[in-house]
Amino acid sequence: MTEPRPDSRPTLEAVAAHAGVSRATASRVVNGGDGVRTHLADRVRTAIRELGYIPNHAARTLVTRRTGAVAVIIPEPEIRIFSDPFFSRQVRGIAKELTAHDTQLVLLLVEDRGDYDRIERYLAGGHVDGALAFSLHADDPLPAIIRRIGMSTVFGGRPGWTIGPAEHDGVTYVDADNRGGAREAVRHLLAQGRRRIAHIAGPLDQTSAADRLSGYRDALAAGRPELFAEGDFTPAGGARAMAELLDRDPGIDAVFAGNDLMATGALRVLRESGRTVPGDVALVGFDDAEAVAESADPPLTTVRQDIEGMGRLMARLLMDTLNVGPDERTAPRPVITATELVRRASA
Amino acid sequence: MTEPRPDSRPTLEAVAAHAGVSRATASRVVNGGDGVRTHLADRVRTAIRELGYIPNHAARTLVTRRTGAVAVIIPEPEIRIFSDPFFSRQVRGIAKELTAHDTQLVLLLVEDRGDYDRIERYLAGGHVDGALAFSLHADDPLPAIIRRIGMSTVFGGRPGWTIGPAEHDGVTYVDADNRGGAREAVRHLLAQGRRRIAHIAGPLDQTSAADRLSGYRDALAAGRPELFAEGDFTPAGGARAMAELLDRDPGIDAVFAGNDLMATGALRVLRESGRTVPGDVALVGFDDAEAVAESADPPLTTVRQDIEGMGRLMARLLMDTLNVGPDERTAPRPVITATELVRRASA
Repeated sequence: MTEPRPDSRPTLEAVAAHAGVSRATASRVVNGGDGVRTHLADRVRTAIRELGYIPNHAARTLVTRRTGAVAVIIPEPEIRIFSDPFFSRQVRGIAKELTAHDTQLVLLLVEDRGDYDRIERYLAGGHVDGALAFSLHADDPLPAIIRRIGMSTVFGGRPGWTIGPAEHDGVTYVDADNRGGAREAVRHLLAQGRRRIAHIAGPLDQTSAADRLSGYRDALAAGRPELFAEGDFTPAGGARAMAELLDRDPGIDAVFAGNDLMATGALRVLRESGRTVPGDVALVGFDDAEAVAESADPPLTTVRQDIEGMGRLMARLLMDTLNVGPDERTAPRPVITATELVRRASA
Repeated sequence: MTEPRPDSRPTLEAVAAHAGVSRATASRVVNGGDGVRTHLADRVRTAIRELGYIPNHAARTLVTRRTGAVAVIIPEPEIRIFSDPFFSRQVRGIAKELTAHDTQLVLLLVEDRGDYDRIERYLAGGHVDGALAFSLHADDPLPAIIRRIGMSTVFGGRPGWTIGPAEHDGVTYVDADNRGGAREAVRHLLAQGRRRIAHIAGPLDQTSAADRLSGYRDALAAGRPELFAEGDFTPAGGARAMAELLDRDPGIDAVFAGNDLMATGALRVLRESGRTVPGDVALVGFDDAEAVAESADPPLTTVRQDIEGMGRLMARLLMDTLNVGPDERTAPRPVITATELVRRASA
């Protein structure tokens, strides 16, 4: 993109002509001088001074003090990010909204704790105007970093971290109604006459997993005993939890899995144990992202959350914050989006 | 991370004490003043001046003129990036190598052509020290952008773009021996007595696809007729191409697919047509990334490329370039990594 440029401002071409070098050489000098011989670079710098040339990106920064970029930080191993469609869906929503604001999405991967020093340096270095962060765990160092450097941030998911007193004040976040959605899933199983309903929870240091467990408990409160095992939102974790649950109670006749990927793992273990779905055991998942639930065999009844919409909303709330002065800002607030039970063959 | 700091340099704490504000407020001012009231910000700025404080990140930039970050640019729709394990594998290799150099990976998504203006602005804005780019198509604007702003870049895949005379001079890239690997795959099929060997090519505006087609032709040169259709490296594209090929020649007894995802699509179409694999039709893929080939039914014979290793190598070559002065640099050169035929049940 080239900024609209009043005719009176000198162009890079004019600088190159004045210095007697190619446009490419002049451009290299403007962008750091990498690989340009000293005497040529000096000529270009003299031309820049004499003509009063302002590079596009510097002009933009001078006017707006903005980089036009926003960081997206997902503190999960890259293998999870690329294999769980939840993440691609959320990123897609964010990307669409940022594009509508002509803002560059910068994805920062966090593989392990050692990466946070680098992330902090990058965020503090003025390379982005704000940040979007989601899928945080309770002990995540990211909120403290963001608070320390004072970066405008919108979070995905209810904050569950513990970085000090009143630590969630002033936090803007977007989440689905995890508890309500889970409640509806379990009530659906109860309404079908299922009696021994187990739950495969996600990692309980994430609020999405904890809130879905709470919804499961709400719905069972009528008197049914609770029975759950903790998974990790992956098919393998769902399979392990399912095996453990069947071991503890072979009479299970329904399972509510905390996400669709764990439900596919559970489905495999139920099959291998000789049980039919939904005949012997009814199964409900959570997410309905991409084709996971729909292409399972049988297709999964699941709690749909508007993952892409939540991504868009996160980005929109951040852009709103960046586009008004500190005095005009409204108080940070959570935004909770509705969930919907999608009925398919598995329950 | 905190830079080692000689005792004589004033700390942020000292600035905060001098200004009579909290460390958090001082930090906000140092990082752009977002959300700090004017009179407080003024006091902090005065303290910074009086004490001669240099922020860590500025100090780092002053010393090294480096941002400590590298951009990874993949000009493919985000849906492809998240669904083809080739990309996650390559990114994993890059991430490992950059982490070893304490360098932040910044992933820039390119959804469509309109995004390039923004990418150019971001790259020209001094937010990264260099770039890694892979999966380019022939008409990709990225090489011209990179040349225009003079950014140190290593490419993944043999350059196939056309941006002017001598346009590939001075380009450093890493690629697999696509042609050799394809040749070996087809020779394996010939050695098993297969006579009518079809090829499902990737998008032929990518050199990886074009080179695999060349390898297929090399191996058939002995006299067998060639028969190929163009896919798009996705399962759906592989299925479409397979249907088209069966339509043109129902007597096909072997298929070499340009990647494993297209092979899985072909497998489905072969099954649906009533053909057995490998009985009626032998099938070979390309990649062997994650579990795609191994978990297919039957497991796929495929040409393995060291995708993660290529990612590491790209990052290492870039870091080498960044760590030496322009005069010490060796000439740019391609690095071609070996492929290996992995025999499984499908052929």
